[in-house]
Amino acid sequence: MQFDAILAARRSVKMYDENYGISDADLKTLFENVILSPSSFNLQHWRFVVVRSAEQKAALRKVAYNQEQVTSASVTVVVCGKLTGYEDAPRIYSDTPQSVQETMLPMIEGFYADKPQMQRDEAIRSASLAAMTLMLAAEDMGYATGPMIGFDADGVAKLIGLDEHHIPVMLVVLGKQVGDIRPRATRLPVSDVVRLETMDGAGLA
Amino acid sequence: MQFDAILAARRSVKMYDENYGISDADLKTLFENVILSPSSFNLQHWRFVVVRSAEQKAALRKVAYNQEQVTSASVTVVVCGKLTGYEDAPRIYSDTPQSVQETMLPMIEGFYADKPQMQRDEAIRSASLAAMTLMLAAEDMGYATGPMIGFDADGVAKLIGLDEHHIPVMLVVLGKQVGDIRPRATRLPVSDVVRLETMDGAGLA
Repeated sequence: MQFDAILAARRSVKMYDENYGISDADLKTLFENVILSPSSFNLQHWRFVVVRSAEQKAALRKVAYNQEQVTSASVTVVVCGKLTGYEDAPRIYSDTPQSVQETMLPMIEGFYADKPQMQRDEAIRSASLAAMTLMLAAEDMGYATGPMIGFDADGVAKLIGLDEHHIPVMLVVLGKQVGDIRPRATRLPVSDVVRLETMDGAGLA
Repeated sequence: MQFDAILAARRSVKMYDENYGISDADLKTLFENVILSPSSFNLQHWRFVVVRSAEQKAALRKVAYNQEQVTSASVTVVVCGKLTGYEDAPRIYSDTPQSVQETMLPMIEGFYADKPQMQRDEAIRSASLAAMTLMLAAEDMGYATGPMIGFDADGVAKLIGLDEHHIPVMLVVLGKQVGDIRPRATRLPVSDVVRLETMDGAGLA
């Protein structure tokens, strides 16, 4: 689809055809697109757990404030962030010239090691970039999505078996929409959220 | 452009035509697209400061590890997050039915008030969703972009006049690319970053 048509059509959808199952092939295509997102130092802190069995969806719904779309959507993607993503740098940079590795690896280590707030910020930042691409790529494939932050993070982590190096950042339900397309929710006008240069004394709204 | 062509073409670009200035009309079109991104409770925690005068770009470069693209790109967008975005809820929900407001406003207050880590997580999450849309929308308009986290957050905040309720989440340089399109940096394969259902004992990579 044309990009502007995707943006125009995308909504955060809650009503799904509970009988529609997404194929492995579509999931693969989807994530092949998602991983084209950028990330800090190309560390790709994003990880994704795709929940799609009836049993696991029901269990996930219990730790997601019982929101119906978790079980009615084809899948719920638990978009995760890897706190220790910087430890993957040697592997990710292994095909770069030695001089690049000698510059980048110590820089990356210094940027994240022993900095838990930076690690958390980065996990959320990179996972969220990927989540946005996921929602747009899904729309391009004819799927509706809905991002969700209403869940018990510890409960989700336990359910899907996350270790202490990974955090759930967002749930994204994905499937075939049923029912009418809702009007878009109100947006703050561009003039309220964008300032040119410094903020003319008044600060940001 | 077609969405898949945008994904295929987008790179994180560092070399820009320093003589190219982006028009106000293009910036408006760009941000009209950006604000179509989703956000938690539709609170739109994103804010954007567009730095584009030579003087301000030079000042920003000094607090961004002297990275050349900050001055050579047409603009640098400081993508910010509003920690107290939840306080905008009454305004954003003002055109919804009274019953919706009575349900949502206390829920939103309870979700964020007096929870500084959640406020920070959300500011980063929502701003990053918008940043990804920004990069894709720019590509659609023929602009190259580059996300950057290499900056002194306090220095950037001071330079652009952020108050204590806003944080810089990311810089995105934007302009007309010069030079060759670089090959895409290595990506971890989908099989390394996606798991179906629970993680088969081994956990996420």
